[in-house]
Amino acid sequence: MENLKKRVKEPGLPPGTPIYVDEQKTDRICIQIMDYDGKQFTEKTVAKIEECFPFKEKSSVTWINICGLHDVSMIQKLGDYFSLHSLVLEDVVHPGQRPKLEEFDTYLFLILRMFYFQQETIIEEQVSLLLGENYVITFQERPGDVFNPIRERIRNGTYRISKSKADYLAYSLIDVIVDHYFVILEKLGEGIEDLEDALLSDPGQEVLHTIHRFKRKMLSLRRSVWPLREVINSLDHSESELIVQTTRIYIRDVYDHTIQVIDTIENYRDILAGMLDTYLSSVNNRMNEVMKVLTIIATIFIPLTFITGIYGMNFKYIPEIYFRWGYPAVLLVMALIAVFMLIFFRKKKWL
Amino acid sequence: MENLKKRVKEPGLPPGTPIYVDEQKTDRICIQIMDYDGKQFTEKTVAKIEECFPFKEKSSVTWINICGLHDVSMIQKLGDYFSLHSLVLEDVVHPGQRPKLEEFDTYLFLILRMFYFQQETIIEEQVSLLLGENYVITFQERPGDVFNPIRERIRNGTYRISKSKADYLAYSLIDVIVDHYFVILEKLGEGIEDLEDALLSDPGQEVLHTIHRFKRKMLSLRRSVWPLREVINSLDHSESELIVQTTRIYIRDVYDHTIQVIDTIENYRDILAGMLDTYLSSVNNRMNEVMKVLTIIATIFIPLTFITGIYGMNFKYIPEIYFRWGYPAVLLVMALIAVFMLIFFRKKKWL
Amino acid sequence: MENLKKRVKEPGLPPGTPIYVDEQKTDRICIQIMDYDGKQFTEKTVAKIEECFPFKEKSSVTWINICGLHDVSMIQKLGDYFSLHSLVLEDVVHPGQRPKLEEFDTYLFLILRMFYFQQETIIEEQVSLLLGENYVITFQERPGDVFNPIRERIRNGTYRISKSKADYLAYSLIDVIVDHYFVILEKLGEGIEDLEDALLSDPGQEVLHTIHRFKRKMLSLRRSVWPLREVINSLDHSESELIVQTTRIYIRDVYDHTIQVIDTIENYRDILAGMLDTYLSSVNNRMNEVMKVLTIIATIFIPLTFITGIYGMNFKYIPEIYFRWGYPAVLLVMALIAVFMLIFFRKKKWL
Amino acid sequence: MENLKKRVKEPGLPPGTPIYVDEQKTDRICIQIMDYDGKQFTEKTVAKIEECFPFKEKSSVTWINICGLHDVSMIQKLGDYFSLHSLVLEDVVHPGQRPKLEEFDTYLFLILRMFYFQQETIIEEQVSLLLGENYVITFQERPGDVFNPIRERIRNGTYRISKSKADYLAYSLIDVIVDHYFVILEKLGEGIEDLEDALLSDPGQEVLHTIHRFKRKMLSLRRSVWPLREVINSLDHSESELIVQTTRIYIRDVYDHTIQVIDTIENYRDILAGMLDTYLSSVNNRMNEVMKVLTIIATIFIPLTFITGIYGMNFKYIPEIYFRWGYPAVLLVMALIAVFMLIFFRKKKWL
Amino acid sequence: MENLKKRVKEPGLPPGTPIYVDEQKTDRICIQIMDYDGKQFTEKTVAKIEECFPFKEKSSVTWINICGLHDVSMIQKLGDYFSLHSLVLEDVVHPGQRPKLEEFDTYLFLILRMFYFQQETIIEEQVSLLLGENYVITFQERPGDVFNPIRERIRNGTYRISKSKADYLAYSLIDVIVDHYFVILEKLGEGIEDLEDALLSDPGQEVLHTIHRFKRKMLSLRRSVWPLREVINSLDHSESELIVQTTRIYIRDVYDHTIQVIDTIENYRDILAGMLDTYLSSVNNRMNEVMKVLTIIATIFIPLTFITGIYGMNFKYIPEIYFRWGYPAVLLVMALIAVFMLIFFRKKKWL
Repeated sequence: MENLKKRVKEPGLPPGTPIYVDEQKTDRICIQIMDYDGKQFTEKTVAKIEECFPFKEKSSVTWINICGLHDVSMIQKLGDYFSLHSLVLEDVVHPGQRPKLEEFDTYLFLILRMFYFQQETIIEEQVSLLLGENYVITFQERPGDVFNPIRERIRNGTYRISKSKADYLAYSLIDVIVDHYFVILEKLGEGIEDLEDALLSDPGQEVLHTIHRFKRKMLSLRRSVWPLREVINSLDHSESELIVQTTRIYIRDVYDHTIQVIDTIENYRDILAGMLDTYLSSVNNRMNEVMKVLTIIATIFIPLTFITGIYGMNFKYIPEIYFRWGYPAVLLVMALIAVFMLIFFRKKKWL
Repeated sequence: MENLKKRVKEPGLPPGTPIYVDEQKTDRICIQIMDYDGKQFTEKTVAKIEECFPFKEKSSVTWINICGLHDVSMIQKLGDYFSLHSLVLEDVVHPGQRPKLEEFDTYLFLILRMFYFQQETIIEEQVSLLLGENYVITFQERPGDVFNPIRERIRNGTYRISKSKADYLAYSLIDVIVDHYFVILEKLGEGIEDLEDALLSDPGQEVLHTIHRFKRKMLSLRRSVWPLREVINSLDHSESELIVQTTRIYIRDVYDHTIQVIDTIENYRDILAGMLDTYLSSVNNRMNEVMKVLTIIATIFIPLTFITGIYGMNFKYIPEIYFRWGYPAVLLVMALIAVFMLIFFRKKKWL
Repeated sequence: MENLKKRVKEPGLPPGTPIYVDEQKTDRICIQIMDYDGKQFTEKTVAKIEECFPFKEKSSVTWINICGLHDVSMIQKLGDYFSLHSLVLEDVVHPGQRPKLEEFDTYLFLILRMFYFQQETIIEEQVSLLLGENYVITFQERPGDVFNPIRERIRNGTYRISKSKADYLAYSLIDVIVDHYFVILEKLGEGIEDLEDALLSDPGQEVLHTIHRFKRKMLSLRRSVWPLREVINSLDHSESELIVQTTRIYIRDVYDHTIQVIDTIENYRDILAGMLDTYLSSVNNRMNEVMKVLTIIATIFIPLTFITGIYGMNFKYIPEIYFRWGYPAVLLVMALIAVFMLIFFRKKKWL
Repeated sequence: MENLKKRVKEPGLPPGTPIYVDEQKTDRICIQIMDYDGKQFTEKTVAKIEECFPFKEKSSVTWINICGLHDVSMIQKLGDYFSLHSLVLEDVVHPGQRPKLEEFDTYLFLILRMFYFQQETIIEEQVSLLLGENYVITFQERPGDVFNPIRERIRNGTYRISKSKADYLAYSLIDVIVDHYFVILEKLGEGIEDLEDALLSDPGQEVLHTIHRFKRKMLSLRRSVWPLREVINSLDHSESELIVQTTRIYIRDVYDHTIQVIDTIENYRDILAGMLDTYLSSVNNRMNEVMKVLTIIATIFIPLTFITGIYGMNFKYIPEIYFRWGYPAVLLVMALIAVFMLIFFRKKKWL
Repeated sequence: MENLKKRVKEPGLPPGTPIYVDEQKTDRICIQIMDYDGKQFTEKTVAKIEECFPFKEKSSVTWINICGLHDVSMIQKLGDYFSLHSLVLEDVVHPGQRPKLEEFDTYLFLILRMFYFQQETIIEEQVSLLLGENYVITFQERPGDVFNPIRERIRNGTYRISKSKADYLAYSLIDVIVDHYFVILEKLGEGIEDLEDALLSDPGQEVLHTIHRFKRKMLSLRRSVWPLREVINSLDHSESELIVQTTRIYIRDVYDHTIQVIDTIENYRDILAGMLDTYLSSVNNRMNEVMKVLTIIATIFIPLTFITGIYGMNFKYIPEIYFRWGYPAVLLVMALIAVFMLIFFRKKKWL
């Protein structure tokens, strides 16, 4: 639900007004710069956005990563310097966008959704990615991300990434985001397995709520992955010169991964639908069982009680009550009735 | 349902007969004119439609906004002066159309559906929009709309809109209508959250009705947004010269917003479907609980009552009733049976 | 179901054998001719098909309307004179076709399905329409149709139709058929509203049957409108010279109407699906209520009866029964138990 | 299910191995030859496949119909003489294929599924059809088919078929197969109507089984008709010279018929789905009724029995039991309670 | 679920890192080489991957089959020698991929999923297939496969395969994999038939679990076959010169088989859905039956017990109890009530 609330800017504001609408302000905005080509490597964290500007003209690949979106004026400055369209800036500072790709003459603009675990909860964050000729700019909502392996590889300097252009860096970032979908799904898969056990052993109302909770998580992942698939597909078929031919096979590889993610999500959805069936039917079955117990007890004892009622009547002329063996005989009859009933229930497979 | 009733004109009327079919007549029709270019700005409210005609030839951008559709002859006059097709006029005065775009040589004709809150109820209104070379004409059913921010921006005179052509004005009007969908959805989202709480605490029959009411609202929004999406898409791909190239990226932005609206609607529909499941299963669960109470009470006391029945029989020769400790012994036996039953139910997890 | 039965001719008959398969014979076949151009107007009802033939060569627009399909030889004669394909004639006399458009060199052949009310029941009829250069031939199964407004407009002579060519007449006939779908839907909509009230006040088994009856009517309308939509679309995109350019915008208008009809049908289907849910859940709820009453009564009185059973036992040594206040004390205990139970049920919200 | 079993050849056999996998061997294979052009007509039944070979070179149209597929060597000989692809022969002798069309240079190969009644059961059979320049070869699994009307028309010699080429013969065979789908559907439609009556009068568990049986029949027809539709469509759009232009309109006619079959099947499926709903809800309703009877009886008599229990207690000091009118007063009180209960149930509409 | 777990490599690893992620290590990797042309045939099992390299340059067709994927360095060596893309190697050693086809200049890369029975359990294995100009390399996860019939045919030397090029070998391998889907489906079909019997005779909760187990198996097959269909389709339409024209008709044949597999799976899914319906309704029916027994017993005996209660009251002035025939009269009345009840139940068809 929060997805929506974030979206609503004051309706009717002129388009391209970058107003940050997320209430939770991270105190400090951090700007991380990594600059490398095959030969040299620079890494620094800066406080002022202006320190990024010199890297724009350098021929080496520069990755500018900005965490925290609430300092809109800073992002505006960056946008002015890199001549970004005002609508791009508006999208950057509005978390809750769906993944999309927009192609401009001098840069590509991607919106992605990043999922990762932080202290056992799933964090969902919007990552905006700008791919220029020799720079990649990423915007995240919060510090904490899934990019550390990329950073390590850049620092190491021996991997393919160090010798490639900016498009390969962009690919790597997308790849690591998609790879984390598998991590999320694996964890959810374990949860679903646990749920399956709970469903078999003791299916209470809370199992139903858990099933629905998982279903919603699947829906939320799905809403992120389906458009992502299209984004990566159009990236693959983009005619932009910013994407080198040799990178395309890697993009196709990410594309395959997103399809695999979708497959897994659909699989889980099918499993959850089956669990819902099982839950509902087990509720019915338990009702059935309750009913059987009631029926067995009532059906055995109500007739017997009726018999005791007969001989509890105060008629003066009930001959049986004066018989010497009347009482044992009645007990015997009642025992026989009970046995007969039990046989009947056994035959009906209720016992 | 009212959607339909409005539609039905007398069947078989010649096409292009503009007959206003909505019964509730707003007393006065108001015609608002705003005329501006980068340099000057005129705003006036006129009573006679003829006062709009001079603006047609002016090179400045003119926005003519007409509230109230029941004075058909006036609209006919306007149509004649602006040489509008008779089918266009028929559509204008028939509320209940689905969103559509029709391209003519000298103007574009759009039908949109506007949603907004007025005293806590959702108002749904048809807005017809004519985009000519230097004019925009809008028709609404009632006074009261979502366009005030646009008016403010035009009056202010410093925003992009003041310097742009008529197509940008048309875009702005569409944008603000779509933005209001988010407002509606946010409000509905809050209602759904409340409903969710109600569902957990005390799920009565009226919860079911509320779920269905929300479902219908979602369906009605959906019926407006899906064709709107196509309309905006064809606007983007239109070859009409009335749409300037630089405006297209803004139109694409509105397009993204409509997709986001659709996403949110589908999300809510999924949530409502899940709530329906939960409701139905909680009805079952409550039945289960009722049955358990009945079964526990009946299963404990029916056998006990049977025992009291035995010793209530009037047989002369029941040896036990003469025993000194008969009565306490029977009480003890009955207490043991009750305890045994309770243990049995505890084991079955019914208690 | 009758839809199907009508279809079955003797399987294996050579194609193009016009055999009228509907059993109910209308006694007289009526042939109505209207011939007009901007200047003159002739109307007559003839008995012999040969009287239509002279109109074929006239340059004025001729509308030949034939009610009743059982005189196959007459239709054969007409077909020979107007050189119609034998498969066209076969389709004409086989009611139960789905809407379709077939283009031939000198004429277009359309099958439509006409719905109208006659004495409160919905009549569904096949209308076959042949559009030639200067004639329109329509075939209906029965007298009684929805074309009277068109006839009036032709007779009047001042409407656009009188000055237009045959394609505009064909359009007008299609338009009035589609307009009548709205009439049908409006009526059904009222029925659905009534049903909704019935569902809330007293939902019996017959409500279920009514829901299903409405669902089937919707399905039957849907089966007529979906292919009709395609038919009108191909008519719009047809390259046949029989359709004048200026008529196309009118055809597009009918197309919009069919989409609106489809929208309304889908809307009603959603509403009916929701009503089915409500019905099923209200059945459950009533069962729940029944169970509660049973449980409350049984749970209060079974334990009390047990207590009376205790003091109804005939043991000699039950000290309590000799107490002076034993009886009132037991009554008090039982009243307390009952009150306690009632509080328990109130807390469970069963009361 | 048999559909599948037939399919499984020993996996891994080289492709194009014609091995007949259906166990039930028809004893004699019959080969029927009809040869005709506008002037002459020959019909004979031969025993040896070689007797067909001379007809290949004749310019008249030859229809070779082979019933029984178990003599694989014979079919191999035929295939060699007519230079058929080995995969075609494999398909011919494997019943259980789905309808398909394969185009080769000198012949077209179609697989169709034929349905007909034989002693009240539906027979489903694979018909393979080879259309060459002047011959049609059909293979069926068993004697008995739907082709007799075609044979009659050929024998008669005055119908269009006698003067047409092989493609018209192929069309006629397809047409008669599709026409028989209507016969099957009509019969099933009657069965569904009967089922509907049974559902209303006495809905037992066997109604459910019948509904599911009909559903499966619909599914099996559907699986045959959907691919058939595509087959006929590609036949219509085929560029093969084996299909004369004038035949195409007839093929289009069959295409319309298959769509009508599909429509009818979908209609029946909707009706069956509605019947399932009705069945399930009527099960619930009956349960409801059972519960009501139980509740009414128990709710009336349990409190009354409690009252009798009170005065059955053996307390020494129960003043009421010594009253002269105690007994009638208690009877009256109990009668009042019963009446009150009945009024309560009447108000709840349980009675 | 294991499908997923296998997939997760350490996220963020550089792409093209072949790390074998399946935990269960088969001890020995076996490399089988078959080399043949129309004239000669060599078969050997080698231990070192380098022994395969000489075959690359030979003009005869070479099939290298590698079982076991855990020796990544060996696969790396092979990849280097045959100049395979690093992403291909990554896919080879990651079981759990979905079927796909990738075209490179000098080879085609296919991923397939192989299903077969080993001691009554279904083994699902990933088979990667590389088709070069004169070689086919296959990778499987484990020893044991479905390829023995192919091996036999190659050894035999008289079949078409021995004279064909590598593409025919690749086709044959795909064909035998698809053929085995039928074997699996046949077996599952038998299981479903058994389940159907169990459903009719004694539908317990475990039937539900079995239905869901079958549904999941169907889903897992489906997830393998749907992409396979696309793979084979693109293989058919591939413009690669590695596929000879005459092989294409065989590929089309496999394509038909995959569609048939899909048809069968969808059929089974429909049957299973129907069985779920039947199961759920039979649970309801049994509940109904339990309720009826309870209601019959309770409804007969509760009123009777009430009567006995009346005459068990200790009022001094109950005239009936002193009547000579009071006791038999009451017994008679009770018998009449019981008979009346039984008639009532018989009329309600509960008995």
